[in-house]
Amino acid sequence: MKVVIAGAGFGGLRLARKLNNKAGFEVVLVDKFNYHQFQPLFYQVATAGLDASNISFPLRKVFQKSKNVKIRLAELKEVLPAEKKIVTDIETISYDVLVLATGADTNFFGNSQLAHHAFPMKSTVEALQIRHRLLKLFEDAHSIADPLELQRLMNIVVVGGGPTGVEVSGALAEMKKYVLPKDYPELDFSRMNIYLLEGAGKTLAAMSEKSSAQSQKYLEKLGVKVMTNTLVKDYDGKEVHLKDNTSIPAATVIWAAGIKGNIPAGLDESLIAKGNRIKTDRYCRVQGFDNIYALGDLAYMETPKYPAGHPQVAPAAIQQADMLAGNLKLLEQKSNPDRMYQFEYTDKGSMATVGRNLAVVDMPKPKLHFGGFVAWLIWMGLHLMLILGVKNRFFVFFNWLYNYITYDQNLRLIFREFNREERRQP
Amino acid sequence: MKVVIAGAGFGGLRLARKLNNKAGFEVVLVDKFNYHQFQPLFYQVATAGLDASNISFPLRKVFQKSKNVKIRLAELKEVLPAEKKIVTDIETISYDVLVLATGADTNFFGNSQLAHHAFPMKSTVEALQIRHRLLKLFEDAHSIADPLELQRLMNIVVVGGGPTGVEVSGALAEMKKYVLPKDYPELDFSRMNIYLLEGAGKTLAAMSEKSSAQSQKYLEKLGVKVMTNTLVKDYDGKEVHLKDNTSIPAATVIWAAGIKGNIPAGLDESLIAKGNRIKTDRYCRVQGFDNIYALGDLAYMETPKYPAGHPQVAPAAIQQADMLAGNLKLLEQKSNPDRMYQFEYTDKGSMATVGRNLAVVDMPKPKLHFGGFVAWLIWMGLHLMLILGVKNRFFVFFNWLYNYITYDQNLRLIFREFNREERRQP
Repeated sequence: MKVVIAGAGFGGLRLARKLNNKAGFEVVLVDKFNYHQFQPLFYQVATAGLDASNISFPLRKVFQKSKNVKIRLAELKEVLPAEKKIVTDIETISYDVLVLATGADTNFFGNSQLAHHAFPMKSTVEALQIRHRLLKLFEDAHSIADPLELQRLMNIVVVGGGPTGVEVSGALAEMKKYVLPKDYPELDFSRMNIYLLEGAGKTLAAMSEKSSAQSQKYLEKLGVKVMTNTLVKDYDGKEVHLKDNTSIPAATVIWAAGIKGNIPAGLDESLIAKGNRIKTDRYCRVQGFDNIYALGDLAYMETPKYPAGHPQVAPAAIQQADMLAGNLKLLEQKSNPDRMYQFEYTDKGSMATVGRNLAVVDMPKPKLHFGGFVAWLIWMGLHLMLILGVKNRFFVFFNWLYNYITYDQNLRLIFREFNREERRQP
Repeated sequence: MKVVIAGAGFGGLRLARKLNNKAGFEVVLVDKFNYHQFQPLFYQVATAGLDASNISFPLRKVFQKSKNVKIRLAELKEVLPAEKKIVTDIETISYDVLVLATGADTNFFGNSQLAHHAFPMKSTVEALQIRHRLLKLFEDAHSIADPLELQRLMNIVVVGGGPTGVEVSGALAEMKKYVLPKDYPELDFSRMNIYLLEGAGKTLAAMSEKSSAQSQKYLEKLGVKVMTNTLVKDYDGKEVHLKDNTSIPAATVIWAAGIKGNIPAGLDESLIAKGNRIKTDRYCRVQGFDNIYALGDLAYMETPKYPAGHPQVAPAAIQQADMLAGNLKLLEQKSNPDRMYQFEYTDKGSMATVGRNLAVVDMPKPKLHFGGFVAWLIWMGLHLMLILGVKNRFFVFFNWLYNYITYDQNLRLIFREFNREERRQP
């Protein structure tokens, strides 16, 4: 059985590993990057606390000893279900079974001006772009005399009070507190403002009441201006225009206010659910096909426990990959279809970190809540465990230790001009 | 005394550190990058053995506690000696004393086709571009059916048999031997060729006969096709055309065959010596000025021991910076001009590494030569000592240890699409 997996995120990579060296399977793993990205730590790359390489793992390294998994560095362009083929920017690849695990990208809700001016943070490279922008900002500030223009430069607006928005604004506040005034003694950082805008009435709305309240308290303690019930209408690169017709001048906006599934061309529009996700049955099968599956952030599946779909988080993608790996093995063995596993998401808890010694953790069973230092330790331990590769784990740990002891994030490096590579095709 | 230093390489950074917190001095250090680059290890960044951040040190971090050194992230455009000012892409900066330490860049000898198609390696970013290119090359090779085209892709030509050319071709040969066949099991790496072309009769021509002979022997042992007495006429992106009218098909050419000084606009052409260097007297003063100095790779100074100029190496730049720091202090104290130091370069030795356990070291006093494992240990120890920052030193050491034990260079990551930053100016 030739299984083509599009996307090497948490779901796609897990499935490929589960099928690795399994008899009867030929696997092609297609991704537009040559590495797996550890998304939960993008914000630390953006704020110069971790190196991009620390949270990126070369795919070919994972499958060096594999007899049946091939890697293709290619971008999925279109699915041709009738021909059982996918079209990529490099080549056309045939499949017996296609698994769409292309995840989700930033949702600017169709506002192209916003998309042009705001910074998304859904890839390692986008995180690096934010890092470069932040550092460049303060370099540029030295030659700006106009006080209004300077203030615009010193205002950073983060939109979206979910885990990403909370984590990045917390990290920015720590940079403002511990690092930036030492690096740029000529600038007055009392004038730097970090705004966190959230449309709902609270931050971390998907977590417990306690976590929401604590996260806001922690953020405000660090000096973040948290604005709940605040909706952004537009951003022209100079002013963030809010729904209530006020505005905030800001040269930099980080947009973490929504995601949408990366649906490839070739699938019928009737299959698209809210959030640009693909409707699947309980086996992750895309409706109307018996050989196309979708999983993770891209999949929309209604189940008894989650009638409005599972949350778009890494554990859901991983659990679906496990379920699908089991079912594909049953299919390969031509087992009784009744033996196939139906998916139901098991929530093992959620967490977010705000700053040093400050995090929140919710656990469903037993129902527990942790805050502050204990939560922060749990958060660190778990993330260290989940990072792929002994070397990455060691480097992340050492970077964290270094940052913790020195109150410093010292990867403040602007590596620009990468476009040379682009114009040099063989 | 306001001292403006253009360039934070080995010479410029050393001088700024020597003047750091010294009474009577106001220092502005101008560089187009926000970090100091450790040039001797570019080749390990290019071959995925080290992270770019491991050999880059944020300038603002060095001078965090400085009372008198300011950093400007700016590119020197022009010197206006009559007005005692320099023009940068950001602002105009006045000086009492100007020190030009802008180093040297790759010399393509006026061949724009060569400059367009060949890869230089004179900055961290250029090293990353080579890394990306190499990895992308083998990804692309999977979809190429034409055997001639495939061979062109599998041929890598390094031009220049100096330390850079020797080190990069040695590292490429080790990738071919230990890493690439594991990463790309579908490709046949017996067909991969690494050519090292050198115009002179031997590699490492500036070192001892023993080192030249050993380096060539080591390279050939690793499978590099060393071609001495071989001059490149042109490169069109497809074929390397040689002076003897033969050619080598190659999609990738790394050009390490010459450097030229980065002379800013505004200086008279009569000041330019061979290699595009600026003529200076024994005090590093640019001829005709008493307040403009040049040092390091950019400076051309004739001395009794080096009547054709000192070699363009880091120790010469550092020694000149030390001399100049002393002389500027004497000037500031209005000492007798006779007390000023005249420069003479002290050669403490030279070295190059070819691969694991393979290096060559020449020492002048006492006259000693080391090869193989001992030389390799000396090379490693010295480079570890010279890298700026405890954390960088630790990470480089750990990466080397990891690479040595595992026979692996595992930073095989393609971080592309950095140009977004470029188009987003505040």
